[in-house]
This record gives sequence, C-alpha cells and structure tokens, in this order.
Amino acid sequence: MLSVEEARARILAELRPTPPETVALAEAAGRVTAQPVLARLTQPPADVSAMDGYALRAADGTLGAKLRVTGAAPAGHPFAGSVGPGEAVRIFTGSVIPAGADGVLIQEDAERDGDWLTVREAVTKGRHIRRAGQDFAAGETVIPAGRRLGARDIGLAASANHPWLSVHRRPRVAILATGDEIALPGEPIPPGGIVSSNAHALAALVRAAGGEPCVLPIAADTLDAVGAVADAVAGQDMLVSTGGASVGDHDLVIEGLKRRGLTVDFWKIAMRPGKPLVSGRLGTVAMLGLPGNPVSAIVCATLFLLPAIARLSGLPAAPPPVSQGIAGADLPANDARADHLRATLATDADGTLIATPFAVQDSAMLKRLAHADALILRAPHAPALPAGSPVSMIRLDTLGI
Amino acid sequence: MLSVEEARARILAELRPTPPETVALAEAAGRVTAQPVLARLTQPPADVSAMDGYALRAADGTLGAKLRVTGAAPAGHPFAGSVGPGEAVRIFTGSVIPAGADGVLIQEDAERDGDWLTVREAVTKGRHIRRAGQDFAAGETVIPAGRRLGARDIGLAASANHPWLSVHRRPRVAILATGDEIALPGEPIPPGGIVSSNAHALAALVRAAGGEPCVLPIAADTLDAVGAVADAVAGQDMLVSTGGASVGDHDLVIEGLKRRGLTVDFWKIAMRPGKPLVSGRLGTVAMLGLPGNPVSAIVCATLFLLPAIARLSGLPAAPPPVSQGIAGADLPANDARADHLRATLATDADGTLIATPFAVQDSAMLKRLAHADALILRAPHAPALPAGSPVSMIRLDTLGI
Repeated sequence: MLSVEEARARILAELRPTPPETVALAEAAGRVTAQPVLARLTQPPADVSAMDGYALRAADGTLGAKLRVTGAAPAGHPFAGSVGPGEAVRIFTGSVIPAGADGVLIQEDAERDGDWLTVREAVTKGRHIRRAGQDFAAGETVIPAGRRLGARDIGLAASANHPWLSVHRRPRVAILATGDEIALPGEPIPPGGIVSSNAHALAALVRAAGGEPCVLPIAADTLDAVGAVADAVAGQDMLVSTGGASVGDHDLVIEGLKRRGLTVDFWKIAMRPGKPLVSGRLGTVAMLGLPGNPVSAIVCATLFLLPAIARLSGLPAAPPPVSQGIAGADLPANDARADHLRATLATDADGTLIATPFAVQDSAMLKRLAHADALILRAPHAPALPAGSPVSMIRLDTLGI
Repeated sequence: MLSVEEARARILAELRPTPPETVALAEAAGRVTAQPVLARLTQPPADVSAMDGYALRAADGTLGAKLRVTGAAPAGHPFAGSVGPGEAVRIFTGSVIPAGADGVLIQEDAERDGDWLTVREAVTKGRHIRRAGQDFAAGETVIPAGRRLGARDIGLAASANHPWLSVHRRPRVAILATGDEIALPGEPIPPGGIVSSNAHALAALVRAAGGEPCVLPIAADTLDAVGAVADAVAGQDMLVSTGGASVGDHDLVIEGLKRRGLTVDFWKIAMRPGKPLVSGRLGTVAMLGLPGNPVSAIVCATLFLLPAIARLSGLPAAPPPVSQGIAGADLPANDARADHLRATLATDADGTLIATPFAVQDSAMLKRLAHADALILRAPHAPALPAGSPVSMIRLDTLGI
C-alpha cells in the first residue's frame, strides 16, 4: 500500500499550473499571480505630510516663533509657490510638502490667529514627513508571481496603479458521480437508492479552493455511459470521479474510460477513511478517482484534491495546512493505516487548540463529519497517546470545507 | 478614547442579520443558514452493507460452511426475495440487506465456486451492517440555523434531500472613497494625487467575508457630491467610507451626509494604526467611517468591518478569530493605545506559530502590510515581552485579507 505522502507527491508531480489570463483588478482576489506585479509609480510620489498641520522651514519652528501663513495645500492640490523664511503653509495628511519646507508643525501644536500662527512645540527637521518611495519605488516588485491575492494585495496592486492583473486561469474541475442507486436532491429516489451528496460537496470544495467546478450528469452504470464522459471533459483540467473505484463488480468508471484512452494507476492507500484511489490521465485531463463513500470522498479530497487544485492554480506543490494542538481524549495506538480522526475543537485559557475525536469514527456518518472542526492526523503505527498530548491536525473550518 | 472592544460591541449591537432568501443548494456554500435544515429522509434508509460480500443468516456463517448463492443485490437494486437457511445473496457496499439476512460475509473471506460459496471466516451477527438511521433520521436537525455552510454541510444537506436552502441574503456593503487627490488605477493621476487603493481592497475584503460589495464612484470634496451618496446607498445594508474622518479641514463626508439625515458618533479609538472611526446610521443603512490611510483602513476593517459583515450575514456578534503563538523578537512595552503589529509567521519544529513583527511599523507602508501574515495584538499598557513569549494574533492569511 502507498503512503498518503507518496500518493500525494505522485499526483502533484503530474500537474502544471493553468495558463495565465488577464483579469480586472476588482475580480482578482483569490486568484494566483502568473507574473510579478511591478510598481508603476513611486509611493508616495513626493515627500508628503504624515499629519495635518503646517509646512515650514524647521529652523523657523522654534518654541514661541510667529510665522505668516501664506497659503494652503490640501491633499491633491499641491502648493504652487515655495515656503520662505518666516513663512508656513497649511497642509493635511497626504499633502505634498511644498518647496522650501523641511519640517511639519502638527495642528495640535499650532496656535492660529488670522494669517499668523505661533509655534507651541519646537519642530524637528524631517519629522512627520513621509519620504518619496517610502512604501515602494517605481519598477519594484510589490507582489511576487505565484501568490494567492488577498484583499491587501488588491489594495497594493491598486496603489501600484494596476487596473489589470495576469493570473492563472481558475482550474476547471469536472465532477462525475456514478451509480444507478443515486439521485439528485429533490429528484425521485429509486427503490433502495440514496441521494447523491458527493458531487455537490466536491463542487463546493473545488470552489472554496479557487477552482471552477463542473458537475457532470450522474453516469449510469454502463460502459457506454461512462465512456461518454471522455467527450464531456474536453477543456477541463481535471476529472474527479467518486464511486466505482472499489474492488466490487461495479468498477465501470475505469473500464469505461480506459476504452477512451485513460491511462491509470489504481492505488491502495494506507489510510482511513478511504483506501482505493485512482490517479490517471485522459489526454490532457488529469483524473482523480475518489472513494464513493461520502466521508471517505471528502477526507480524500482534503488530502489530495485540495493540494491538486492549489498546484493547478499556480501555487507550489504542498500538503494541506497542518495545525498543532493537544488531544482532548486518550487516543488508542494506530494500526498500519494513517488515520484521520473527525474531531471537534475547543480552545483552552492559553489559546491552545484542544481536538477531541468523536468516539465512533464510522466512515458512513456524514453528519458527524460535517459537525467536525478538524481531522486529527494519526500516522501509521502511531503509539497510544494520553489526553493532553500534542497532536497535528488539518482544520476543516478554516478551509471552507 | 474608546477601547477596541467597546467600539466593536457598540457597532455590532446596532446590526441585525439580513432577511432570508432561498438559494439553490449548489449556490449555498459560504452562506449562513436562516433556518435549521431538517433531514427529509432517514440515512441509511434501510439496513445496508458496509462492505462488498454476501448477505446470509449469521447462524449459517460458521467456518467452512457451504451456502447456495440465490441472487445478487447491487447497490440501487434491492433483492426482491428473502434469504433462507443455507442461502446467501451477493451484495456490495451500500446494498440493502435482504429480508432474512442478519450477517455479512465479506468478499475476502468467501470462496466462490459457481452458485456455491464456502465461508472462510466465521460471520458475526450484525457486523458490517449499517443500521437504518445510523447517520440521521427523518425530521432530525442536521444543520442548525446560523451556521456558515462549508462543503461538508452542502454534502449533508444534499444527502438529507434538500435542493434548496434558506440562507441570509449576502450583506450589501457600499464602499465610498472620497478625496480630490485620488484616482482609480489606470486613470490619469491629478498633480499631487495618489491612486485609490482603499475601495478595491475593502471590496475584496467584503467579498472574502461573504458580503456583496458595491464600489461607489469616488466622491469629490464637496458637500453636494457627498450628500448625493445618500441616494446611492438605498437598499444597501451598510455604507463604509474611507478618508474624510480626521480632525482636518476636509471632513466633508459626515457633514454632507448629516444634511441627508445621518446620525453619527465620532469616536477616537485607543488603537494604532487607526484612531478616528465613525459609526452611524443613514435611515436603514448602517455606516462605518474608516480612516483614509490604507493601512489603518484595512486594520480597522479587520477589527470592525469583518465582524459587522459576519453579524449581518447571520452569525453571532463576535471578534475576529484570534490565534496563539510566540513572539519572534523582543516586543517593547506598549503605550495607552492597543497596537496591531504587522508580523510575518514561521512555524517551529513543534508546529508553534512564531510571529515576528517588522522593525518599522509605519502606517503608510501598504507593501509591508500586504507582506504580513498576522497582526500581533498588543493590549494598552502591555509590558515589554522578550522573544519567545506567548502572544495573541489575528491571522490575516487565513481570512482572505
């Protein structure tokens, strides 16, 4: 059996980032930069005031000095003249420091009387002045390639004067659920059938990870129906299937797609929940076959599909983020398969995360998975741990899963 | 001066969740439930097999016994007859256990020869059978009201047979940037002007928090231009303004909107970066006035706007999530204002987060804020801390900010 780490490494090694596209700045949040973003201007573009007050020659700003106010320079309206000896110009936060001035008397320290002001606190040369280029200089890289853009990056790209950005196209992920026994929610349920939950759970997961899901119609359990999927996935970056990958009599997905050119590895992974996993390629489309069991499907998607979408999106190949905490209950020794215990989270007085696994970990209990906050990671052959021991976990609550 | 906590509590106390709307299950991820989701069916609907194998009477499943295979029940195709003494029916994971059977012989433990099989491992009654309702029973609440729906919840709602969900409408947040000196990215920049970064950074933040942003045109610095905003925000849940809230000569936003009915509190908050904050109401529209400085605007948005959007979305009133870690450098004693140190994160061998503040914390440095991973929280009058001391922080990287 393959380890989780080895399976993930093999899947990621086959994937390349999607090509770049140009998107409006306002639509770029959450996308991954395909090129570095270089500043198109210098910020601030000139020396500017950090405070409301008066620009003056610092040498004039001695305690008790009286200066004549010769004008004003609201932000956006630079003072046309220059500041001579004994003069001051009214300025505001962000105002360009007028020529001749090298000091700022802040408003609270100025006593104004008509065109005159009295200095109530001595001025220090250069203080309260933000130098041109203090934030960034024209030509400087402000955002590297391969970064997922958050709100702050959008602000930074805006201030660097970029109305458009070059980002990787959202990975297109087709999702295929198979099985005569499944029905879409609200549709008539066949006798002995169940409602399909995997396709839409996986679609939400793909979207949360920054991908563009495409839910394919449920494929009937025939070779022809499954084979036709090969036509439906043209132009997709990845095909994710669920079900049909056990060792039972109904493994039609692989057989049906093999007839259409699927090259495939069939893996047993040393993990729980989940075990069978299919990794393959159908032309240019990567394929990942997840277990049909909903809990196994989502756990496997967390471990393998999320990193795959991140990689396709332009991020480095990496496992899902792991957090540290302590066990809220005794954990039994683990067997040869990596376990992923569904657990709730609490926080102790120090802010330490306490992860307490549910007593029953049956992989058919979707409600319990949905109510979990984290998966406690138990390595193969991990020894028993008493409550309070450090544990590693994948937090599900912060991943949009 | 108000504390951060008091200001946040006052803002949140004025807000109520948006009304519910019905959305398709496939569009519900990230939304907050307005009503509990009750299971419309029992899952599993009948006793089903947890494995591929054979259904039989457990009493017949003794080591070495030979049983006659009388039929098959693929998942979705229940066996019409019943299992008599000495008989077995081929079943698969998810197959309904046929009448008469109370045990499952797993495939690996069965030796099949034509219509006959030999039991190679004794069968335990009830083992490998998932009982009807093990996951949930019809009528049971599977998702409470007031929960933000992740991918797992979507799967659970699907399996509970809900094609539609009742969720709170996305909060509509209008964003107003003011100032003669600002230009949109790519537009001509006036002399002494800068490119507007706040509006689009805040729009991305609103979207990351689950709100629907509406970026208003930049308002010129006149009372009439600002007053006209009152018409533009009809139907919005909140108006967020930036700039125009300092104690300078250019506080037109409040004055302009007061003429249109704005009732307003003007607060000085004991915090850094940021200090002036406006909280008010314009008819049914809540108003939050953020500082114009981009760093202050984003930090204040993290502390006040994110929780406000969460509350409007239907979540409880709460501060942004706080994580624990240790300081990567000595921290000086703090003054009377709560500080929010921009810091990078690393992880030590135990997985502990190490937050190292930038040496210079100037609030005009947007690039530095964008490159930060977290804000270290320093309470008013917090004592100096040596490197390695525990610190609380708001992680920006996981909030989409």
